[in-house]
Amino acid sequence: MGKRAAIRPVDWDGGRVVWINQRNIPWKEEWRRSSSVEELARAIETLEIRGAPAIGVAAGFALTLAVWGARGGAQGAMKALRRGAGRIRSTRPTAVNLFWAVQRMLDRAERMHDEGATLAGLKEGMLEEARAIQREDIEANMAIGRYGNSLVRDGDVILTHCNAGALATAGYGTSYGVIRAAWESGKDIRVIATQTAPLYQGARLTIWELTRDGIPATLITDSMAAYAMGNEGVTKVMVGADRILLNGSVANKIGTLGLAVIAKHVGIPFYVAAPLSTVDPKSRSIPIESRAPEEVRTFLGKVRMTVEDVPVLNPAFDVTPPRLVSAIITERGIARKPYERSLGNIIGARGGKG
Amino acid sequence: MGKRAAIRPVDWDGGRVVWINQRNIPWKEEWRRSSSVEELARAIETLEIRGAPAIGVAAGFALTLAVWGARGGAQGAMKALRRGAGRIRSTRPTAVNLFWAVQRMLDRAERMHDEGATLAGLKEGMLEEARAIQREDIEANMAIGRYGNSLVRDGDVILTHCNAGALATAGYGTSYGVIRAAWESGKDIRVIATQTAPLYQGARLTIWELTRDGIPATLITDSMAAYAMGNEGVTKVMVGADRILLNGSVANKIGTLGLAVIAKHVGIPFYVAAPLSTVDPKSRSIPIESRAPEEVRTFLGKVRMTVEDVPVLNPAFDVTPPRLVSAIITERGIARKPYERSLGNIIGARGGKG
Repeated sequence: MGKRAAIRPVDWDGGRVVWINQRNIPWKEEWRRSSSVEELARAIETLEIRGAPAIGVAAGFALTLAVWGARGGAQGAMKALRRGAGRIRSTRPTAVNLFWAVQRMLDRAERMHDEGATLAGLKEGMLEEARAIQREDIEANMAIGRYGNSLVRDGDVILTHCNAGALATAGYGTSYGVIRAAWESGKDIRVIATQTAPLYQGARLTIWELTRDGIPATLITDSMAAYAMGNEGVTKVMVGADRILLNGSVANKIGTLGLAVIAKHVGIPFYVAAPLSTVDPKSRSIPIESRAPEEVRTFLGKVRMTVEDVPVLNPAFDVTPPRLVSAIITERGIARKPYERSLGNIIGARGGKG
Repeated sequence: MGKRAAIRPVDWDGGRVVWINQRNIPWKEEWRRSSSVEELARAIETLEIRGAPAIGVAAGFALTLAVWGARGGAQGAMKALRRGAGRIRSTRPTAVNLFWAVQRMLDRAERMHDEGATLAGLKEGMLEEARAIQREDIEANMAIGRYGNSLVRDGDVILTHCNAGALATAGYGTSYGVIRAAWESGKDIRVIATQTAPLYQGARLTIWELTRDGIPATLITDSMAAYAMGNEGVTKVMVGADRILLNGSVANKIGTLGLAVIAKHVGIPFYVAAPLSTVDPKSRSIPIESRAPEEVRTFLGKVRMTVEDVPVLNPAFDVTPPRLVSAIITERGIARKPYERSLGNIIGARGGKG
């Protein structure tokens, strides 16, 4: 029951980026270090680093590496930075935090460059900006936890999907942050985590975090969600997000949509918790990443489970429509329908017709 | 595209029972043989033989073995038969076909014994009865296929769960029988099969059968069902059943309930195909088998996927309420709501208030 500091899955360590290889959890706690932008990009593509906010943080540090490793003065650094930005943007298409973090780093560098910054100045500025992204994400997560905790009651049984914990963020968790905040405030809660096929982030990562934090946890297959909601007293569903449109459409790990449909059918609330860096105020639709067929044909590349070369679908995400989303918990408050207005007000854009 | 005979997963072969070990599909086609009731019971418990109708057939042959191996004349055979019946009944609690087949074998033996049958007569009678269960199941499946085919349209995309194919029956398939009949009648259909965690009967068995039969197949994780129904043009869901109550409640592989809820939400029909031996006209609720936690903590006992000893749920089945079931396809016709009346009429019991 002791309060243990949340893990920081990606961090800066004296000129290098250090991260925990999430592909190897729960079997091994392997920390990796690199000063190569390309290695960071691959770590994001292969899901050694995953979770929308965490890849935002990783993007910040990756672009810091680009500048730290640059030759040819400030001019060369800007060139390396832009090249690095292109590479990092190409890693994963759905999570918007990645693009947001890359843009934020670029904007800061352009501003500094325009103001005549030296290479040393750019290096310092980039690290400062990446650290700020990291720190603000933790602060945002803690604020999400506080707001979200107002929705949690003593005795709640919370069903969650995939991993939106410390591992998925700078180090606290979004939907897991709400669970963490509720638990730390002394509420008697229980968490049911789905395995989350095909990459099993729920079984591997969320259960690992829950066990580490001493929060009562039960593992189910994805297929048991309707049974659990009907027979195991689940009182709410709480998930993270990879991208949220202003109308309240939520892209999150494949399987989320089914959980939202079932929650609606059973009559329990379906909550999404995410920092505002996840909100995409510009797009009207969300590109869905389609991943390699072998992820579905095998168990984590280790054991084949079906006929060779059988056609598969492998969308990494699905989109839950706003009408199925009971509320979106952000670091600046809880948004409810209509989301154009509530999210618009929160992010300071013009919402609704007002 | 050639028509290939469906596999017979359990059969009688000169004093022994022969079955394909379904735990090893798709990796190996291992045929096993035994004359031991205990070995048959274990094959059912460990899912070497699985699928409600197939375990009914296996039960028939197992009790034939009991009599064939008996000592002490007709008296001894009856004793061995009753002992065998107890053992076979203890293997799996949910599928009603098992109990139905055991009772049918016992009734036949008791009748023969009362009429003074010799041991030789009992042996012959038991084999005849078990063969009849097997033959009638294939005939029932083919009839289910014909009735079900009337619901299938050219261009249909059918989502199915678990395995209700030849492997799950005496040798044709229930929901898969409908797919088979539609395909053999020349309809252009496509099947989307779920992996069906935690034992992956969809990925291992259904995809194996579909590939073997040349029917266009796509594999998805269980968590992709809502995405597939919303984005991949699924036109109907078609599943088997392990037990059906007279009110139309359907126990089937865990995950079925979620599919039914999503189908309802999306507005596509949800069909159940099963022989009348699956209908339980007496019970008002269905006992749900809870299986070993390691099934959920590991991938098929081969690779651990989570923290050791984490609590899990592992119900093997869930129950879909009648209001989510568009129709139940049986060998004597298609039943629709209210099921008390339609199923009652079909099985010849008094349905509704009539």
